Amino acid sequence: MNDATRTSTTPPALPMPDLRDSFPGPFPASAHADDIERHATQWLRTFPLIRSERALSALTHITGQGVARTFPTAGRDELFLCADLFLWLTAFDDAHGEATGAADPARLLRTTSEYVHLLAGHHEPPGGPSVFGAALRDLLDRYGERATPAQYARLTAHLRDNLFGILWEAHHLHRPDRVTLPDYLAMRPHTVFVRTVVATAEVMLGYELTEPDRSSEPVRELETAVADLAGWINDLASYAKETARDGSATLGLPALLMRQHECDLEEAFRRASLMCEQQAAVAAARIAELTAGGGPLADHAHALRSVASSYVWHIDDSRYRT
Amino acid sequence: MNDATRTSTTPPALPMPDLRDSFPGPFPASAHADDIERHATQWLRTFPLIRSERALSALTHITGQGVARTFPTAGRDELFLCADLFLWLTAFDDAHGEATGAADPARLLRTTSEYVHLLAGHHEPPGGPSVFGAALRDLLDRYGERATPAQYARLTAHLRDNLFGILWEAHHLHRPDRVTLPDYLAMRPHTVFVRTVVATAEVMLGYELTEPDRSSEPVRELETAVADLAGWINDLASYAKETARDGSATLGLPALLMRQHECDLEEAFRRASLMCEQQAAVAAARIAELTAGGGPLADHAHALRSVASSYVWHIDDSRYRT
Repeated sequence: MNDATRTSTTPPALPMPDLRDSFPGPFPASAHADDIERHATQWLRTFPLIRSERALSALTHITGQGVARTFPTAGRDELFLCADLFLWLTAFDDAHGEATGAADPARLLRTTSEYVHLLAGHHEPPGGPSVFGAALRDLLDRYGERATPAQYARLTAHLRDNLFGILWEAHHLHRPDRVTLPDYLAMRPHTVFVRTVVATAEVMLGYELTEPDRSSEPVRELETAVADLAGWINDLASYAKETARDGSATLGLPALLMRQHECDLEEAFRRASLMCEQQAAVAAARIAELTAGGGPLADHAHALRSVASSYVWHIDDSRYRT
Repeated sequence: MNDATRTSTTPPALPMPDLRDSFPGPFPASAHADDIERHATQWLRTFPLIRSERALSALTHITGQGVARTFPTAGRDELFLCADLFLWLTAFDDAHGEATGAADPARLLRTTSEYVHLLAGHHEPPGGPSVFGAALRDLLDRYGERATPAQYARLTAHLRDNLFGILWEAHHLHRPDRVTLPDYLAMRPHTVFVRTVVATAEVMLGYELTEPDRSSEPVRELETAVADLAGWINDLASYAKETARDGSATLGLPALLMRQHECDLEEAFRRASLMCEQQAAVAAARIAELTAGGGPLADHAHALRSVASSYVWHIDDSRYRT
């Protein structure tokens, strides 16, 4: 975060996290950023998930730049796949989740059931595929060609959790008073899609963790720290935008901290910023520790560093400017 | 199905499927049935998921007998694990799904979020574990000790789908008119838990399919036939019970067929029975084909035969008598 961003994303007085010690920029970016944007635009012509040309253009641009920083050393086709996956989740959330989902949760369940069916390995959805269903099928086919069965199983599990997170959010958008802070913190990684992005890293970069490594404390703590960080900085960075769009951002970290601590917005931002800085420090320490040992664990640590950096970078981007 | 069952489960005039050609009894049962029942009773003392002693007694009895037929050659500890898993799903559906879930779907989402958290591999649920959370953790630990990472991933994926199915059902229990027949048929395997039971077979019986075998057409068709059959015969057998309890069984195969074909209940039962008989014949043919080749595919075919048999047997049991 820099001062220019602070003034553009939020009212000037609100404190924002300083993550420069843990994640110093500049963040490396793949040379394929523009290619990703072009590809994504084309993919969204094949699968028209986004109606507004302006929204499509903004989203493909930020996705190209973001994914180029998420996996700066990945191959072109892998970057395209990662971008399309992220676009699918974002477009689905925009089109069917959030306010639309909150207005008719049962309809959101029915819409989602098609994707549950596809994720469970069935090819033909009941009643013919929707545009989102056809796009998901394309993504799963492309991922399946590159992934081991276990990698494929992990990705589809995380996608189910994302769908659950979107459902959870739709059910509480107008009743945030029913959500506790611990519940919110547990659900946030699913609604920001970060664990899904992390799950793609092995396929994007061509390494594979052993199971003992995957379930080791350093890896678990690193992944949790990055997952928390991604959701929280997104909440802070998007606060102004969400408030401008809906009049309030009541189901987000600042609002929940205000309620939990009976404090004002500035104090909530201060607390949230401290939380971000603490998790960033935890992540950075684990990345240094895992990198030192080399091998797949170092590959994974590098991946987590660039994933975290892409979220840190994201909050500096125009998508979050009001 | 025999005539005695027909008269006890449904009004005498309603046609029921005759599955004797495809799944001739008697169905082999493990000698551990009583042990399973005793173990299950004890497990439900440790994790009190069921409040009513009468319900607990009925459910542990049917589960002991049912699981003994689901995997007649499995070891004792594996049978205990399978029984506890099925009990967890059934008890959760009874306690939080169905009418309770329909009354407050957002609460069901919040309750479910704890299990999503555990299934995603996190040990400590936010806000401390519930009784169902603690029981699920116990199940996942025991399953994890026996399963390969891929087997574990498949089970937890199916459990997520079961939770989604319970959510889907709760959202439509009072609005069955919003559900199409194809949607219902696609969702039914998740709400009857049959694919989850099938997913445990490798761990229960100690074989492992290759990935090409798992995704081969004969295996996929067999699993789909058994999944359909399980849900449909359950719908027919439980129709009288559901109608007696809630006044109507509107979100089930007979009701949907009546609406789809503008027919009466008897005609709906006739159509559903034919559907059952056709899928049973498909399953039996695939079982014969896969058994002939030997190896893990034959093991899997035997497992699917006993799983199907346990559902066929189940409809003959007192749980479904009114």
